[in-house]
Amino acid sequence: MRIHIIGTGLLGASLGLALSEQDHRVSLEDTSPTAQQLAADLGAGEVMPTGDQANDPQIVVVATPPDVAAPVIASALVTYPNATVTDVASVKTRLLEAVRELVHGSDLDRYIGCHPMAGREKSGAIAARSDLFTARPWVVCSDEDTPSDRLGEVVEMAEATGASVIHLDPRIHDAAVARVSHVPQVISSLVASQLRHAPLEEVALAGQGLRDVTRIAASDPRLWTQILTGNSEEVRSVLVELRTELDDVITALELGAGSTGVLAKAIALGNEGHDRIPGKHGQAPTKYAVVTILVPDTPGTLATLFKDIGDLDINVEDFRMDHAPGQKLGIVDVSVVPATQQELEIGLLSKGWQIPESAIEKEGIA
Amino acid sequence: MRIHIIGTGLLGASLGLALSEQDHRVSLEDTSPTAQQLAADLGAGEVMPTGDQANDPQIVVVATPPDVAAPVIASALVTYPNATVTDVASVKTRLLEAVRELVHGSDLDRYIGCHPMAGREKSGAIAARSDLFTARPWVVCSDEDTPSDRLGEVVEMAEATGASVIHLDPRIHDAAVARVSHVPQVISSLVASQLRHAPLEEVALAGQGLRDVTRIAASDPRLWTQILTGNSEEVRSVLVELRTELDDVITALELGAGSTGVLAKAIALGNEGHDRIPGKHGQAPTKYAVVTILVPDTPGTLATLFKDIGDLDINVEDFRMDHAPGQKLGIVDVSVVPATQQELEIGLLSKGWQIPESAIEKEGIA
Repeated sequence: MRIHIIGTGLLGASLGLALSEQDHRVSLEDTSPTAQQLAADLGAGEVMPTGDQANDPQIVVVATPPDVAAPVIASALVTYPNATVTDVASVKTRLLEAVRELVHGSDLDRYIGCHPMAGREKSGAIAARSDLFTARPWVVCSDEDTPSDRLGEVVEMAEATGASVIHLDPRIHDAAVARVSHVPQVISSLVASQLRHAPLEEVALAGQGLRDVTRIAASDPRLWTQILTGNSEEVRSVLVELRTELDDVITALELGAGSTGVLAKAIALGNEGHDRIPGKHGQAPTKYAVVTILVPDTPGTLATLFKDIGDLDINVEDFRMDHAPGQKLGIVDVSVVPATQQELEIGLLSKGWQIPESAIEKEGIA
Repeated sequence: MRIHIIGTGLLGASLGLALSEQDHRVSLEDTSPTAQQLAADLGAGEVMPTGDQANDPQIVVVATPPDVAAPVIASALVTYPNATVTDVASVKTRLLEAVRELVHGSDLDRYIGCHPMAGREKSGAIAARSDLFTARPWVVCSDEDTPSDRLGEVVEMAEATGASVIHLDPRIHDAAVARVSHVPQVISSLVASQLRHAPLEEVALAGQGLRDVTRIAASDPRLWTQILTGNSEEVRSVLVELRTELDDVITALELGAGSTGVLAKAIALGNEGHDRIPGKHGQAPTKYAVVTILVPDTPGTLATLFKDIGDLDINVEDFRMDHAPGQKLGIVDVSVVPATQQELEIGLLSKGWQIPESAIEKEGIA
């Protein structure tokens, strides 16, 4: 395929690298000649001579900053009347509306909005990687007017990067990322914010629960301000729902005895939502068995542990290491399919590993 | 030491097992003769003949359900006039007040409240483990009236189980667990609750951020209703603070342009709070370098990976495995001290591992 990329920042340059590796023909364009040349030097594609047009591209990818994406998309639809035009912005509805206002009706059929859900904390072509999209979801927003051959081209390009294509309506996409990404970010930040004035001796009681809830609270404020602003209605709507449930909990705590049912319900509804999160490989939700192992905190110990697990021919679905405050001991949680739990425990115990607990779920620890 | 344990459920029996292993002399008492005998049969200590007293114990540990702890503590102070009496309940202030109302002033000096921060989802002596407390915080609540020899005995007992002792005022303890444990639990449940009515195609976009924020939303509603009710004032107070910040965010999203400063500040305050969470080994917060490795999802691969890391003689501080939806590929994040990051990346690349990104922080990914 012949693909033209406008905007050679992190996403544009990474896409160029990925497609060039697959022997697609990539041309690059950026308002900054330096950025454009850098991406080309890194191997993301060919530089276009100033003022020139790309040679009849099949796909034009707009990978500019989101606040200029709409006019660049509209202009690309005019400049390349045969091409399918797509983009990589993380909020879709408002962008589609802005493009619709700028172009004629039939041209809109050639625009297919996308959101590859990949990124990193660094920006610019210098941070680009050909495998940035590998194993990440790539959302494609089409509707009934989208010609199937154009849709097929965009999907082929996305899959060439190693991403997993997911088809979604723009509104559904924006509502989904509000719920699964933007709101969790806001709430994680708010929970972490409550630690600001706590003495360190109090924060020292932090367990794995707090660490998990607040991990993404380390995110970049500038980036997230743009994302939240771009999807403000959907994010607000979910936050308002959440606040209503929070109000109920606060009232129940105030009333004390007699209102414990409200507290039990809040936790139970959380169970219900948690069970909807899919397991590995995009399958239906899976409950794994968790085996907890105490390990000395020395180089090579994890290698021995995983070699011992590998010798048992049991596949590890997930693992995490807990931090033991003040102790030179690691607590490793290994998740396996429940049918293999007993075999794993017996196998590891026989090799001298310490397994303090053995249960299907380790959640709910006070 | 001679230690008498009243209440042979999960915590009491586990404590008995741990202390018996260390050759301390443990006697057991429970209102249920069956529970008492089971704990003894498991090796948690000696059963007391009905109606008898323990033989002059140095420490009496009350490990009953929290709603009967106060009268049992008061009674133990009378029955054992030489003993130090302690307990294991997870909320301390209300319990201390209840005990104070029941006993004479000087007897109160012999009571030292504790909260070993360990547990599991199963209950009863049958679920007991001698290493339940290993590497977990054990909070000891004493004040200026606590005789130092009695405090020393309680600390010695706690440390004999492998726990890390932390001294805290009861009020500070309750405020601390509200902030680092109880509020994160409520909020995690509320975020997960918002997924209940989302179509599975939307929830399929879930990344590691959502999974982390909602992991503890799988917790037991009954257990958490008791905990939240017992610490309702402190939990409510932190939730009200959090709600004020949430209201600010909701208002800013409604106002749109011009109020982005509020959004940026909310995320920045989250950064600040996140930085206060201590690193491993109870040290000051540490920023680790994260190296991300793509691994085929087959048995033995992790063993090879950790063997290769071990061969480089680099210590792994933390690791996690990300789930790649729809793909048979794992994404492993390995945290190391920043000084060893480059060595690790070069070493792993030379052994053929795929490292798509290489950066100090992987947070903030859109």
